[in-house]
Amino acid sequence: MGLVVQKYGGSSVADAEGIKRVARRIVDTRKAGHEVVVVVSAMGDTTDELIELAEQVTPIPSGREFDMLLTAGERISMALLAMAIKTLGFDAQSFTGSQAGVITDSTHNKARIIDVTPGRIRNALDEGNVAIVAGFQGVSQVSKDITTLGRGGSDTTAVALAAALGAEVCEIYTDVDGVFTADPRVVKKARKIDWIAFEDMLELASSGSKVLLDRCVEYARRYNIPIHVRSSFSGLPGTIVSNDNPNKPEGGEMEQAIISGVAHDTSEAKITVVGVPDKPGEAARIFRAIADAEVNIDMVVQNVSATSTGLTDITFTLPKTEGQKAIDALGRVKDGIGYESLRYDDAIGKISLVGAGMRSNPGVTATFFEALSEAGVNIELISTSEIRISVVTRAEDVPEAVRAVHTAFGLDSDSDEAVVYGGTGR
Amino acid sequence: MGLVVQKYGGSSVADAEGIKRVARRIVDTRKAGHEVVVVVSAMGDTTDELIELAEQVTPIPSGREFDMLLTAGERISMALLAMAIKTLGFDAQSFTGSQAGVITDSTHNKARIIDVTPGRIRNALDEGNVAIVAGFQGVSQVSKDITTLGRGGSDTTAVALAAALGAEVCEIYTDVDGVFTADPRVVKKARKIDWIAFEDMLELASSGSKVLLDRCVEYARRYNIPIHVRSSFSGLPGTIVSNDNPNKPEGGEMEQAIISGVAHDTSEAKITVVGVPDKPGEAARIFRAIADAEVNIDMVVQNVSATSTGLTDITFTLPKTEGQKAIDALGRVKDGIGYESLRYDDAIGKISLVGAGMRSNPGVTATFFEALSEAGVNIELISTSEIRISVVTRAEDVPEAVRAVHTAFGLDSDSDEAVVYGGTGR
Repeated sequence: MGLVVQKYGGSSVADAEGIKRVARRIVDTRKAGHEVVVVVSAMGDTTDELIELAEQVTPIPSGREFDMLLTAGERISMALLAMAIKTLGFDAQSFTGSQAGVITDSTHNKARIIDVTPGRIRNALDEGNVAIVAGFQGVSQVSKDITTLGRGGSDTTAVALAAALGAEVCEIYTDVDGVFTADPRVVKKARKIDWIAFEDMLELASSGSKVLLDRCVEYARRYNIPIHVRSSFSGLPGTIVSNDNPNKPEGGEMEQAIISGVAHDTSEAKITVVGVPDKPGEAARIFRAIADAEVNIDMVVQNVSATSTGLTDITFTLPKTEGQKAIDALGRVKDGIGYESLRYDDAIGKISLVGAGMRSNPGVTATFFEALSEAGVNIELISTSEIRISVVTRAEDVPEAVRAVHTAFGLDSDSDEAVVYGGTGR
Repeated sequence: MGLVVQKYGGSSVADAEGIKRVARRIVDTRKAGHEVVVVVSAMGDTTDELIELAEQVTPIPSGREFDMLLTAGERISMALLAMAIKTLGFDAQSFTGSQAGVITDSTHNKARIIDVTPGRIRNALDEGNVAIVAGFQGVSQVSKDITTLGRGGSDTTAVALAAALGAEVCEIYTDVDGVFTADPRVVKKARKIDWIAFEDMLELASSGSKVLLDRCVEYARRYNIPIHVRSSFSGLPGTIVSNDNPNKPEGGEMEQAIISGVAHDTSEAKITVVGVPDKPGEAARIFRAIADAEVNIDMVVQNVSATSTGLTDITFTLPKTEGQKAIDALGRVKDGIGYESLRYDDAIGKISLVGAGMRSNPGVTATFFEALSEAGVNIELISTSEIRISVVTRAEDVPEAVRAVHTAFGLDSDSDEAVVYGGTGR
């Protein structure tokens, strides 16, 4: 029996009862003969309450101090969890990110892990302890200041420790039963996925699925650490994210497209730069200005230019929260680039179909667009990758669009079987 | 202008408004040209809330994890305070006890400071920062685990840093205006003391005055760090605790008793060991049993034995919270010692008069007992030191007794002057 890393999110440890329930689950894993490292988030709304306190004190919190403040949250949950485990008769010790050897760069509020030196964790395990580690935090390599890892930081902590300690699996416990073929709040008939490849999970994550963030999946893929996403409430098996399907059908891989799911995202806005001179270097100048403003962009679309004018339009999507920053940055370079105007639209939504073997199966794209058309959904932008098709529509059309696509690909839980397309899959 | 260490208690930083008020006070000190190190406690009821959470999770929290939990409280207040100072345009950095170099032994929940290595604090000051340090916490020398210093730990942190950094004064900010001649809640006419010697403050502290704890005063006396106890609300000068009275009257010291104040304490209980054989070693065995149970005792009184029986009674006082532990410990050694019975009484109170030159001024003791007698207060135990007389009475007599003594020694605020006794003072 090997080493298991388990990560519990804030909703799993929201109160004393939750902490005791999680402690029992950890002890069960320990009793099954595994060494256990637990990564824990702050309890329930603790982080939001700390952020609110900071807002009451200052309009612009210092990055260093904001990290010092927020890391108090995991300190509370991890100590309580260690106490609860000891009450069940098992040894446990809690460790801050710094004590656990999570070394980061110095970018406060969204630091990146640059090394993991889990010597104290290894010792604690060797002495028979369950090691409880604060998620979401580390210590900067140069200044030795406390840092936080930003969004999805606790999941990334868990995967990074799993990689550094050679764990056999990283279990991510959450308040849902796993990764679904679509958001169950939108699609009542969404099905839990038993297994999904890293690449497909990455596309789902970057297309709006909230269960895992792309950053954590990317880390797991790089170090080949299987992730098991499951519920801390039900105890049922969840979704395995790995390189190889553990329950691969006999006869090996079939050459067919395997649709993983439908993701959607209504957190983005769309900016169109209208009337850009269609000559080399113009797009580069636009996106350099955006990058210098530290704005992350998602889809980028440029149509062929109208030959009569020699002008083209460039459209891209980005988080709504960064919209103003991008508009300001582009405004500053208007004269240098010479575009005509900017259009900003935040009433959009994105629907993405993710699955292997899609590009080599033309039927997939056709079915996708037919489903949207029959649902009366107008498509504003299209973007594709090897294993994903995404479209941008009006935000209010998103729920209907997701349901239509989900049904069209036989993903509904009452379908007899998934629709299979012949072709060169993996 | 030298280095000033300021300590703010939980009531001074109870909410965002309090934190901003404290930040303004710190900035004022900085503007006056001082280097400033700030030691801060957890906000308001934070520590109590964390203790309650621990109680919900486990009946017997692990010492190591309990310390990890509680230290989250100062982490929150110190980060918020640093943010608030930066908002006022001054640089500030917060440090945990561990980062500040507060090295302790490994006794969780009541660790003792064994070294202070404030290199990071010194660097932060050199770079122009206000350094904010978490009170009440440190890191153990051997195991590098987080420890807490127990009761009065934040005051002790402040004094220890002041000593290690060579500060010119350690300011302890609290919610009262300073040290008073008696508890103002009991004696309406109590007066604020402008200056008091370390020794007198030590006696007041160990006699029940809650403003400073004896541990912190002892540390300050050892390193000769003047303490200034003052209000974070009013901004008025408070009470200086030091070796030398900065406002010494012209003409030098007069040989007279100087009464500092009247302290009282109703948190103790009284245990009488009845019928102890009056021979060498019996008292030692009793107090060894008490010490082995880690019970702190206060007053000890043994009367001359009745010659007819060869038996004596030994009475001591101790915190009520440790009463059961002491009774159990003495019960276990009953056969070895051969005493007759134990009497436990927790309806007692202690009144102490503290002042220099007391023993050599018989009039002081006489006035003290006369005042109690006229107030109809019965005395159950008496204990004296060079600069203190303490008596134990019924708990319900304490307020009247304190007022009577306060008036008798001319300490009331509407008295024209204090009563002065001739003799060999300091």
